[in-house]
Amino acid sequence: MTATLPVLMVTGFEPFGGEDLNPSWEVCAALDGLQIGGARVVARRLPCAFGAALQALDEALALHAPALVLCLGQAAGRADFSVERVAINVDDARIPDNLGACPVDVPVLPGGPAAYFATLPIKAMVAALHGAGLPASVSQTAGTYVCNHVFYGLMHRLTVRPGVHGGFMHLPLLPVQAARRPGPSLPLTTQVEGVRVALAAAWATAQDLRAAGGAEC
Amino acid sequence: MTATLPVLMVTGFEPFGGEDLNPSWEVCAALDGLQIGGARVVARRLPCAFGAALQALDEALALHAPALVLCLGQAAGRADFSVERVAINVDDARIPDNLGACPVDVPVLPGGPAAYFATLPIKAMVAALHGAGLPASVSQTAGTYVCNHVFYGLMHRLTVRPGVHGGFMHLPLLPVQAARRPGPSLPLTTQVEGVRVALAAAWATAQDLRAAGGAEC
Amino acid sequence: MTATLPVLMVTGFEPFGGEDLNPSWEVCAALDGLQIGGARVVARRLPCAFGAALQALDEALALHAPALVLCLGQAAGRADFSVERVAINVDDARIPDNLGACPVDVPVLPGGPAAYFATLPIKAMVAALHGAGLPASVSQTAGTYVCNHVFYGLMHRLTVRPGVHGGFMHLPLLPVQAARRPGPSLPLTTQVEGVRVALAAAWATAQDLRAAGGAEC
Amino acid sequence: MTATLPVLMVTGFEPFGGEDLNPSWEVCAALDGLQIGGARVVARRLPCAFGAALQALDEALALHAPALVLCLGQAAGRADFSVERVAINVDDARIPDNLGACPVDVPVLPGGPAAYFATLPIKAMVAALHGAGLPASVSQTAGTYVCNHVFYGLMHRLTVRPGVHGGFMHLPLLPVQAARRPGPSLPLTTQVEGVRVALAAAWATAQDLRAAGGAEC
Repeated sequence: MTATLPVLMVTGFEPFGGEDLNPSWEVCAALDGLQIGGARVVARRLPCAFGAALQALDEALALHAPALVLCLGQAAGRADFSVERVAINVDDARIPDNLGACPVDVPVLPGGPAAYFATLPIKAMVAALHGAGLPASVSQTAGTYVCNHVFYGLMHRLTVRPGVHGGFMHLPLLPVQAARRPGPSLPLTTQVEGVRVALAAAWATAQDLRAAGGAEC
Repeated sequence: MTATLPVLMVTGFEPFGGEDLNPSWEVCAALDGLQIGGARVVARRLPCAFGAALQALDEALALHAPALVLCLGQAAGRADFSVERVAINVDDARIPDNLGACPVDVPVLPGGPAAYFATLPIKAMVAALHGAGLPASVSQTAGTYVCNHVFYGLMHRLTVRPGVHGGFMHLPLLPVQAARRPGPSLPLTTQVEGVRVALAAAWATAQDLRAAGGAEC
Repeated sequence: MTATLPVLMVTGFEPFGGEDLNPSWEVCAALDGLQIGGARVVARRLPCAFGAALQALDEALALHAPALVLCLGQAAGRADFSVERVAINVDDARIPDNLGACPVDVPVLPGGPAAYFATLPIKAMVAALHGAGLPASVSQTAGTYVCNHVFYGLMHRLTVRPGVHGGFMHLPLLPVQAARRPGPSLPLTTQVEGVRVALAAAWATAQDLRAAGGAEC
Repeated sequence: MTATLPVLMVTGFEPFGGEDLNPSWEVCAALDGLQIGGARVVARRLPCAFGAALQALDEALALHAPALVLCLGQAAGRADFSVERVAINVDDARIPDNLGACPVDVPVLPGGPAAYFATLPIKAMVAALHGAGLPASVSQTAGTYVCNHVFYGLMHRLTVRPGVHGGFMHLPLLPVQAARRPGPSLPLTTQVEGVRVALAAAWATAQDLRAAGGAEC
């Protein structure tokens, strides 16, 4: 029964900034239901809006009780699978979100820590992508828009879910988007493959870490 | 019988600069034998060497008597299908070619014109690529290395083959290449599709142009 | 007597990465002793080495008891005055530092917070630079090399020096450096002017903040 | 008497594209009247308009009978002194010129050659700039806008002025421009110095070339 498999939750965003689609959700939709390493991928779509995105994330976490969470976002201008290292406690929007909010220099979580590091094995994910012949790198900034907001909110929520690792990956534009505004792109099939590879690497390592942790205690 | 179909000749280069493969040849190999608009694609591999590349081009032109020629080359750093407008009469190499030659500021053809424009419909090719949801642009420079050398040599040879249109397109790296050196890339299937689309647009327009020319005279 | 003026401390690094000079120190040297808004600039040169740089910073803080600290660093590839928002608790070096150390994914401060935000008025500094006709922006990452190491170490040290604001600014290459490796640059006189403008804005705002704070309590 | 000195003519453009100033003219204005190597710099301002720019160039050539001509233009996005190698016989405007014209794929000179190479010693100019600690490179494209239009028109006109060498150099934005739109910039004093250095190198070499030619015949 798939219902009893551990859940690898991936999230993607609805389109924003005048685009018709968002690669992060397209990839999620393609991966939904896939089995990876004895676990099942569950995909959730998040609104591109401060606050509302985290409410949707809360519902998803409550519903699916995932064993691992990888949130995805679109990064125009980036050419590779960009595995984020750190989320910072600030919202600073240059363009309004999809509900019209445009916060400037306010914390994601008042009183929260300045930052959270991803708890996914970011170096192992990059190595797995390279091993699969795909371009990838660690990124030191997820920006200050809704992507970072969700990443920070996720990591904060996971502090009370011990053993559940989480992180964020930025994806390039799709070619159809780059046909309208110059910049690097990767087609959907490549993006789906890359996220699958990174997710499998993250899950395999998370399992190792748990096993190791269990043996020590 | 395919032997009687008009030939659309595409050329690609062997790897150079320490790479194991060259997208321009990988794309050619995938298109070889394909039928497009009542014509047949014939692919030829060129050495990445000044002089030798044009000798191979000469042999290919003599053997296949193509109705249209599109030469392809690799362009690290470019993110889209880059349709070249103009070839200039200069070889200026920063790295040696595959035979060790490193010409500096010598003409491709002593006494030749300073430049040749592509005779393919470069704007129609870009429009067709955009229409297929693929990133593309006109480029104003094919550089001064073996790509430009072949492009210039091609256009010079076509001056004595009236009605045979020719041009050059630069392709991004493949993802497996970009996994080793940062920069934009597009996977082989996308590159094959893009060259097919551009070639079809070029051939359709070339046919139109011939028809129109005939009617006017 | 200048000895009694509040001290605005600026730090710059010695050259690294094969360069003969480092704009961050060249700017510091030019500003050393300058008076700005009733305060006196004191410049200190830091080794480009993990650990050693913070020891030098400790000595400088003890010696000068600054009222404000702005650390400077070189950022090849950046085109403007890049005012850093946040320092993260990680050292991750792709090239060895000047003492040969090459730490990978170790904390700057074991057990320290994941990040510190600059306490200088980064938006006011960017606005002042723009007002002076100079290119500037807020940056969301100071990297993971010695620059971020010093920035993080500084902010940690300032937690026990209430009222002393601190931050970090990255500077472009100098033209003489860009003559050897392509990329944006700004000449020393422009860099000196920009740092002076940013420092004056930071100090003026810090004074305002103090005044405001005092009035409220 | 300065009236009898050979004239080194430099041209710059009026502002365009919504800018308030154009570095190419600012540099010219600063160099006007300067003596270099026994010659006198004469600066002329050109309208940023197809056709009209060449009329102004014709008047200037007739009036000053220069011994050497270096036209300058603004290149947003370029970081260094960009010495152009070749002008091509095409106008292709993405934005209207200052008189509202927006030609697409029309020749600068109907029936003219596809391209003209600069007759200034472009490699010597780059070497002189590097020697002065300034960033510089040879560029293979001057675009297809008014800059290329003037460059092509200049080189065509010089074909009937034997011994008069000419060329084109693109300049980065000024910092005040880059304060409003991100990108590389160099301040006016640096730009003036760079153009002076390049002009001196061009003139010194041109004199050498003439001397050499005279000796051989």
